[in-house]
Amino acid sequence: MEAELNHTHDAARQSWLPAASAAGTAFPLQNLPYAVFRRKDSTEPFRGGVAIGDQIVDLAALREAGCLHGLAADAATAAAGQTLNAFFEMGPPAWRVLRHALFGLLERGSPHEAMVRPCLLPQALAEYAVPTRIGDYTDFYTSLDHAVNCSKPLGLAVTPNFDWLPIAYHGRASSIGVSGQAVRRPVGQYRVEGVAHPVAGPCQRLDYELELGIFIGTGNAQGTPIDIAQAQRHVFGICLLNDWSARDIQGWEMQPLGPFQSKNFATTISPWIVTLEALLPYRQPWRRAAGRPLPLPYLDAPGNDAAGAFDIRLEVAVQSASRAARGLPAATLTRTSFRHQYWSIAQMIAHHTVGGCNLQAGDLLGSGTISGPTPGEAGALIELTVAGTQPVDIGAGEMRGFLEDGDSVIFSGWCERAGYARIGFGTNHGKILPARHVGA
Amino acid sequence: MEAELNHTHDAARQSWLPAASAAGTAFPLQNLPYAVFRRKDSTEPFRGGVAIGDQIVDLAALREAGCLHGLAADAATAAAGQTLNAFFEMGPPAWRVLRHALFGLLERGSPHEAMVRPCLLPQALAEYAVPTRIGDYTDFYTSLDHAVNCSKPLGLAVTPNFDWLPIAYHGRASSIGVSGQAVRRPVGQYRVEGVAHPVAGPCQRLDYELELGIFIGTGNAQGTPIDIAQAQRHVFGICLLNDWSARDIQGWEMQPLGPFQSKNFATTISPWIVTLEALLPYRQPWRRAAGRPLPLPYLDAPGNDAAGAFDIRLEVAVQSASRAARGLPAATLTRTSFRHQYWSIAQMIAHHTVGGCNLQAGDLLGSGTISGPTPGEAGALIELTVAGTQPVDIGAGEMRGFLEDGDSVIFSGWCERAGYARIGFGTNHGKILPARHVGA
Repeated sequence: MEAELNHTHDAARQSWLPAASAAGTAFPLQNLPYAVFRRKDSTEPFRGGVAIGDQIVDLAALREAGCLHGLAADAATAAAGQTLNAFFEMGPPAWRVLRHALFGLLERGSPHEAMVRPCLLPQALAEYAVPTRIGDYTDFYTSLDHAVNCSKPLGLAVTPNFDWLPIAYHGRASSIGVSGQAVRRPVGQYRVEGVAHPVAGPCQRLDYELELGIFIGTGNAQGTPIDIAQAQRHVFGICLLNDWSARDIQGWEMQPLGPFQSKNFATTISPWIVTLEALLPYRQPWRRAAGRPLPLPYLDAPGNDAAGAFDIRLEVAVQSASRAARGLPAATLTRTSFRHQYWSIAQMIAHHTVGGCNLQAGDLLGSGTISGPTPGEAGALIELTVAGTQPVDIGAGEMRGFLEDGDSVIFSGWCERAGYARIGFGTNHGKILPARHVGA
Repeated sequence: MEAELNHTHDAARQSWLPAASAAGTAFPLQNLPYAVFRRKDSTEPFRGGVAIGDQIVDLAALREAGCLHGLAADAATAAAGQTLNAFFEMGPPAWRVLRHALFGLLERGSPHEAMVRPCLLPQALAEYAVPTRIGDYTDFYTSLDHAVNCSKPLGLAVTPNFDWLPIAYHGRASSIGVSGQAVRRPVGQYRVEGVAHPVAGPCQRLDYELELGIFIGTGNAQGTPIDIAQAQRHVFGICLLNDWSARDIQGWEMQPLGPFQSKNFATTISPWIVTLEALLPYRQPWRRAAGRPLPLPYLDAPGNDAAGAFDIRLEVAVQSASRAARGLPAATLTRTSFRHQYWSIAQMIAHHTVGGCNLQAGDLLGSGTISGPTPGEAGALIELTVAGTQPVDIGAGEMRGFLEDGDSVIFSGWCERAGYARIGFGTNHGKILPARHVGA
């Protein structure tokens, strides 16, 4: 695994942009994540950009400036469009060449600094869009701790298939939005204790789910599975993902065909896609929980045990309207890591395609809720509050069983390891608006 | 309801093209369904066309011929692209104007016959593609008879939510193909009796599901539901849909999040989208099964009881490789009608959007399996064969519990009613190829 590391992972290298070396920056020279952006409140077309420090490299401008050549120039042209799909389709050699070229242009001592500087836009002046045309969105269920936390309060065991396959369902692509999304509390059907019939009304048990979003870089032909040994090569990169969930609607609707209305009103992703190449130093052995069976051969790979997991640190904070009004910071509820996940990204992809289902460039996989083994590592309120029965203190006298109108949910993520640059994901936030009126 | 009928529903009107008036034609002057097509085995771009008799009106050619004007010309330009999305987005007035203009051009006595003739391509020389860019595909579960047929052999009752909402799950858009699709038998995980662990291998219980595909014409903004009284206006038209299903994989995977691998390897739709306007004479009272509750207000509408259902006749036939080799016809297994469905199309749309989920032009809804109240009206083998325990005779000594390699499944659909032209959907067929080898 270490063999794949290269000069772009060398923590000693620095950018000529001081902000890229500032303590705690999400976006040092070693990161270089992708987004689509435009000037805030403008009517400019959205276009591809790369983060460095507190700036965005405008790839269209950089392409025009003429400091890229050959495959790197072609890749930048593809990445400068309204979505990143065409760039993703070019595959790993193009991703790598462009990333390395950008690294060279932005590194201290680059002869091209003067050409690159005019291609920068401060992140503070930008707004973002969903970075790809997401043909299909799939959401997994791959944390054993989450599965246990959700099943136990209902007196249920985790279903026996959990040990054998990365469970998943198809999600809704149209309602995926980018960080900053205002999410209207959904209306739907659910049961109310003591009422014989279901009612239709605003969700009373609105929740978030802490997940990562995995962007598929290159797909597969229908009928031709992706072998697990090759699966990670099909991933372009990773973002933060909030799988908003209406627990009361979910409880009533999900038999027999799974969640639908309880999930499809909104999903929020962070704007920046951190490339898999930038994450290579943070791979870790994949955890096979004690007493659990060996995976079937199509889900097993020699490298999976050694480096199948990623140690991506994650935090969830909730900010209420009243705390915000008083200038208080958001309350951190959860700190965990993606390394605890029972199934790996490579296993998700191998399972998804084993029956012949075709993935396409720009598709999005949700990792499933990420919960670690201790109570403070639970990735959803339903777990933290034991299905709402034990509300959590968000400070200054406010308790939360589930989300209230005006609440913001803020995810942040990063990787850190001695000897390597800190790789940040930035933040992913969304705010709950009151429900629309409905006649029920 | 009859008030909405107009001259395009008048059975006395005829085309100057004799094949459009031939007995049993699917595509008389009163139908005019849309597809995207090109010359078979060519590298021409796919483009929009309209069926008349045994011909296709090439809309790009018609547009160039100059016999359309104003909104009809703009609509034809939009419909002449590689997908019909831009045409759908124009909305009902544009759909209606173009259909009426085509009716006029193709009607006997049209002064433009000589201009239109060169724009025709025989259907026998054409191949088709999926007619829209399907942003999201949703599959419903709306036949009470199907729900009962599937639950009973397992000793289960239909879930109590069936009476209250049109149950649905998100499906896979990428693997939807057009009639003629060759479907490789999927590999996946399932349980085998007497074996302690699940195995990975070729599906042993491969099935079809008889459905209609409902194409969304115009969508809704995220957070803004579609009222049931307006819902039908958002539908462009309807096709035939085969929701291929791997029953053994489904049985093992679907708890707790619903079907995934058991469905996402392929879905096959017929090429022609029959417009809702052409189907107006075939609306029927919506059936509220005896003893079932009134729908909640958001699923109820004054017109729903009177004309919420469509009497679309459907047939399923299976053809084996050996029957085909001996020149024997396909064996018809099922004859039923969409009028039996418990939930209407308008109810599906109202429910889909009530929580704020946004539909988009070109989205596809599967109706759910269509099974009628008698045994010969079941829309899947799992029902016809009581979960494989009572194989059906497909003739000449062959029995089927589930599908075998080389089998073709052929759906056909049409509407007929005294005093009105027969409106056909054509056929939807797909063939099972052997599974790929997998190490399990």
